[in-house]
Amino acid sequence: MDAVLRQSKSMCPFLMKTSPATLRSLSTTTATRHASPGGGSMSNLQTIARRCPIMGQALAVQTAKSGKVGVGLGGVAALGAMRAFTGKASTGKARLHTSRSEKARAIEDTLFGREHGQHVPYPQHVKPVRQPTQQTTHHHKNAVKFDYEGFYNAELDKKHKDKSYRYFNNINRLAKEFPKAHMSNKNERVTVWCSNDYLGMGRNPQVLKTMHETLEEYGAGAGGTRNISGHNQHAVSLEATIAKLHAKDAALVFTSCYVANDATLATLGSKLPDCVILSDSLNHASMIQGIRHSGAKKIVFKHNDLADLEAKLASLPPDVPKIIAFESVYSMCGSIGPIEGICDLAEKYGALTFLDEVHAVGMYGPHGAGVAEHLDYEAHVNGKPHGTIMDRVDIITGTLGKAYGCVGGYIAGSHKMVDTIRSLAPGFIFTTSLPPATMAGAKTAIDYQMEYQGDRRLQQLHTRAVKDSLSARDIPVIPNPSHIIPVLVGNAELAKKASDMLLDTHDIYVQSINYPTVPVGQERLRITPTPGHTREFREHLVSALDSVWNELGIKRTSEWAKEGGFIGVGEPDVKEPEPLWTDAQLGVDQVVKEMKATGPLGVMEALLEREREEMARAVSATA
Amino acid sequence: MDAVLRQSKSMCPFLMKTSPATLRSLSTTTATRHASPGGGSMSNLQTIARRCPIMGQALAVQTAKSGKVGVGLGGVAALGAMRAFTGKASTGKARLHTSRSEKARAIEDTLFGREHGQHVPYPQHVKPVRQPTQQTTHHHKNAVKFDYEGFYNAELDKKHKDKSYRYFNNINRLAKEFPKAHMSNKNERVTVWCSNDYLGMGRNPQVLKTMHETLEEYGAGAGGTRNISGHNQHAVSLEATIAKLHAKDAALVFTSCYVANDATLATLGSKLPDCVILSDSLNHASMIQGIRHSGAKKIVFKHNDLADLEAKLASLPPDVPKIIAFESVYSMCGSIGPIEGICDLAEKYGALTFLDEVHAVGMYGPHGAGVAEHLDYEAHVNGKPHGTIMDRVDIITGTLGKAYGCVGGYIAGSHKMVDTIRSLAPGFIFTTSLPPATMAGAKTAIDYQMEYQGDRRLQQLHTRAVKDSLSARDIPVIPNPSHIIPVLVGNAELAKKASDMLLDTHDIYVQSINYPTVPVGQERLRITPTPGHTREFREHLVSALDSVWNELGIKRTSEWAKEGGFIGVGEPDVKEPEPLWTDAQLGVDQVVKEMKATGPLGVMEALLEREREEMARAVSATA
Repeated sequence: MDAVLRQSKSMCPFLMKTSPATLRSLSTTTATRHASPGGGSMSNLQTIARRCPIMGQALAVQTAKSGKVGVGLGGVAALGAMRAFTGKASTGKARLHTSRSEKARAIEDTLFGREHGQHVPYPQHVKPVRQPTQQTTHHHKNAVKFDYEGFYNAELDKKHKDKSYRYFNNINRLAKEFPKAHMSNKNERVTVWCSNDYLGMGRNPQVLKTMHETLEEYGAGAGGTRNISGHNQHAVSLEATIAKLHAKDAALVFTSCYVANDATLATLGSKLPDCVILSDSLNHASMIQGIRHSGAKKIVFKHNDLADLEAKLASLPPDVPKIIAFESVYSMCGSIGPIEGICDLAEKYGALTFLDEVHAVGMYGPHGAGVAEHLDYEAHVNGKPHGTIMDRVDIITGTLGKAYGCVGGYIAGSHKMVDTIRSLAPGFIFTTSLPPATMAGAKTAIDYQMEYQGDRRLQQLHTRAVKDSLSARDIPVIPNPSHIIPVLVGNAELAKKASDMLLDTHDIYVQSINYPTVPVGQERLRITPTPGHTREFREHLVSALDSVWNELGIKRTSEWAKEGGFIGVGEPDVKEPEPLWTDAQLGVDQVVKEMKATGPLGVMEALLEREREEMARAVSATA
Repeated sequence: MDAVLRQSKSMCPFLMKTSPATLRSLSTTTATRHASPGGGSMSNLQTIARRCPIMGQALAVQTAKSGKVGVGLGGVAALGAMRAFTGKASTGKARLHTSRSEKARAIEDTLFGREHGQHVPYPQHVKPVRQPTQQTTHHHKNAVKFDYEGFYNAELDKKHKDKSYRYFNNINRLAKEFPKAHMSNKNERVTVWCSNDYLGMGRNPQVLKTMHETLEEYGAGAGGTRNISGHNQHAVSLEATIAKLHAKDAALVFTSCYVANDATLATLGSKLPDCVILSDSLNHASMIQGIRHSGAKKIVFKHNDLADLEAKLASLPPDVPKIIAFESVYSMCGSIGPIEGICDLAEKYGALTFLDEVHAVGMYGPHGAGVAEHLDYEAHVNGKPHGTIMDRVDIITGTLGKAYGCVGGYIAGSHKMVDTIRSLAPGFIFTTSLPPATMAGAKTAIDYQMEYQGDRRLQQLHTRAVKDSLSARDIPVIPNPSHIIPVLVGNAELAKKASDMLLDTHDIYVQSINYPTVPVGQERLRITPTPGHTREFREHLVSALDSVWNELGIKRTSEWAKEGGFIGVGEPDVKEPEPLWTDAQLGVDQVVKEMKATGPLGVMEALLEREREEMARAVSATA
């Protein structure tokens, strides 16, 4: 089937441009209005197929012969390909025997006039159903109109049924009691264990001071787009700071990094002639949307798989513009992209590198510039970015809303690239700028983290401590070298129950992560320690998890192992990856030397105590 | 040509789905890498045509016969349609005689392997160039790679050449000296006359107080997406307030109204089966993008033209889902959408109404809910929204970043609609929430404007006063019934010069509005008075404009009239539209009654004085 599929893709612009995932979704979704009276239905993919001059004709011929929908499917190679995409060839039979509804019609008569209630036959040849000049006005009195509320209901029902419906928890994070929050009831306290305010910069005294002052002097909002009265000294200095952070020529701030990724990829992908975008299979929704919006050819490569990426790059002509879009820290599993290897391939094959450092900025590297900076730690400590991996990345995107504690996103790169996006991207041009106080606060946060390493080191140490404790309790953590702690549950309902029980019984807030954010069967609790999660908090968390695991009978690591393991948990040949922050970078080596006598957990706690003291000194000195 | 065009559209899914504007743009843009050595070039539309199994074959046959690009254009009906879209049939000849470049090849071999330097003939039949299983690896050593910096340069050069390159002015609006700002030099003051902080809510003492308090208690950022630790009491109460404002079941807050429009239209348009979106020709970029991203069929209707809209609605079957997307106040010309008429048509033809009130919220209606509220002024004063025009609109979108002085955007509508967008829109789901202080400040601003009408009345009176003064000086204002004052310049270079001269010589900041925000030849200065633009400011503005008009020799209204008029300016049969805020609503009638003796300008100033006093009382009472 693969050969048929590829052959069809090369012929058909629709198949070529549409991702396998979309095709699969189109083939499994069914528009209600296409349901036939006989109970059968026509997939959205079939509906689209009818619009194609080649497929539509083939289908029409088959329909005329048999009076049935779908019988023609096997007759045309390209339709075979469609079926291959659906992965449902065996279940396709049900559809082969449904009777055809009058409503299941080609789109041409939808758009170019059809007498109400009059049956219009499928076009037998590649020509319009009727002369478009004879446009018909529909009689709308008493006509059946589309049921929008019914449609909303159906969409929501689907979410309820597959357990992907989201219930938001009312969490009010308290600046003065970090990492605690109150619920809708102001007296009900919980400890937040899943915020992306990784370093607690949202309550950093310097950041708040800057914001108060800027709010007082320059007001609440920017008052316009960047072009019309919304450009100011705060934007100028924030962008200069970001450019300095990443050692790039220039930077550009957006309302969010979702918008930064979407707007930048959409603009480059649509403007670069015949651009091909190579996208890691675990890329964030914002990049997926940006690529989709660009209309460029998208090639997905296997997560972090350099060999697969190279094979795909090698299949493209050298002079075709290409973008490799990937992340440094993948937020839901904590894996880390092979940045250097991707830069090597990009140089070899003439591709741009587009690196999303959203979950890494503030968190890695001597100045908090992210994983790319971390990989040449010493060079950046010594202020020598030239020739480093970060220097080789063409476009870096990041957020001001996670480790920097504020809101907003950005890109950084060459002057001309930034100026091009600034000049062409509608998502940048036609929207109100971030408020002056937000930009000033974010700049202060970046400056602070460029100078001070204590927060991110302490965050890493807390992460290690939690991972160690969970491992000691046989609670399954998906192994990774980063600051993310994905605790595997493996079932949507159980994951939600675990999250609810932690909140209700233990005053601990950890949101469950279900489909579509992670694949079905890989549901998890995603835990993110911060410098504020001191020993009491950690011990409370681990014992609460242990109790919830018991109560709900969620699988332990050893149980996963008995089944042969799953996504790294309990797999026999999976080694715990070395953390990106090494023992030496965290100062563990030295403490070990000093405290030979103490046991391993004692070392960790001693180290944490030392870091905490250092942090307290730094905060009080700057407040 | 029209018949050919429509016929082709009904056959070809690409032509059907692509707007005339996009087709025109594709046919006039040329990818640099497709330039042929002979100096000719292939349009992007032609490049796309080559990917189509039908057109590609036709082109290949023609090319094989003649060895030239483009000769086959007339041979196929659909290609004729393409030419019709370009509106450039007469200039097409130049392309007919260019020689074919080896680089101008079909996309198939780009994607499925081509030996470097080897000439691959066009496919003569509908089959792939080669078996895709025999995938070829390109030799990349010494291969010519794509020149990305050269591409950026070329894009920026285009912007410089057509005068659409944007230079940002560094404008720091001072909360305590509203409507003044300082430039990059802190001592250099200018008066801002083009901000969208229409009511000065960005410096409103109540808004700032709320923001300071929230910042102190809850910190700088939300710390997560709405689903993961970023949902809080501020989001809950802001959304409840917005729903109340528009008398709807529910509301949903986004990072901006650009994102709200984009995400909502993209989601509805892609999820509603076979959805058709009818879009006003002057709709904002955010809606245009949302429609494009939805992949739904888009039908553009003439700006504010109910007859054209009805003709287009009537051509569609009743049961097909349809969305009519339009605005209340069109920001660049100040025109106002016929909301009631559109609601009537929507009901008749079973369409959803999607109304962007971005430039109207806070500004119109007894509670500042926008134009839809304003149209049933008395009913809403009496708290009876049921059956009003606002009640009949399905989806209202608005911003927190203009009249409400903060940042962010929203949608309001039925519970199920809002829950569907909340559950499905990636642009809502996968992004960090707005900061608590921003949401709290925006809620305060809405509450304030729901209770107090003084700001928007004063804004309207200042608008009238400026329009009157400009008219008295023969300075051309594009007529409209709203608060926008578009001063016609009609030339990109002159508009920029006028803006620069106002800034440099008169310390007045009004950004010039050039292509692509407005069509070429309609360049303008867009002036937006606020309640803070008291008489001294207005007199200064008008005399500065008068001087700039003299200095640069920009056309006066009387000069436009001599040429027969242009877009409402100096046109003989154009009547000045009645302002939406009537004399009675503004209290003008009563003042006129009281002050019979005074001249018309005296009445206006007396009224303004009264409003100003009222505002001062309100502000001091609440501060």
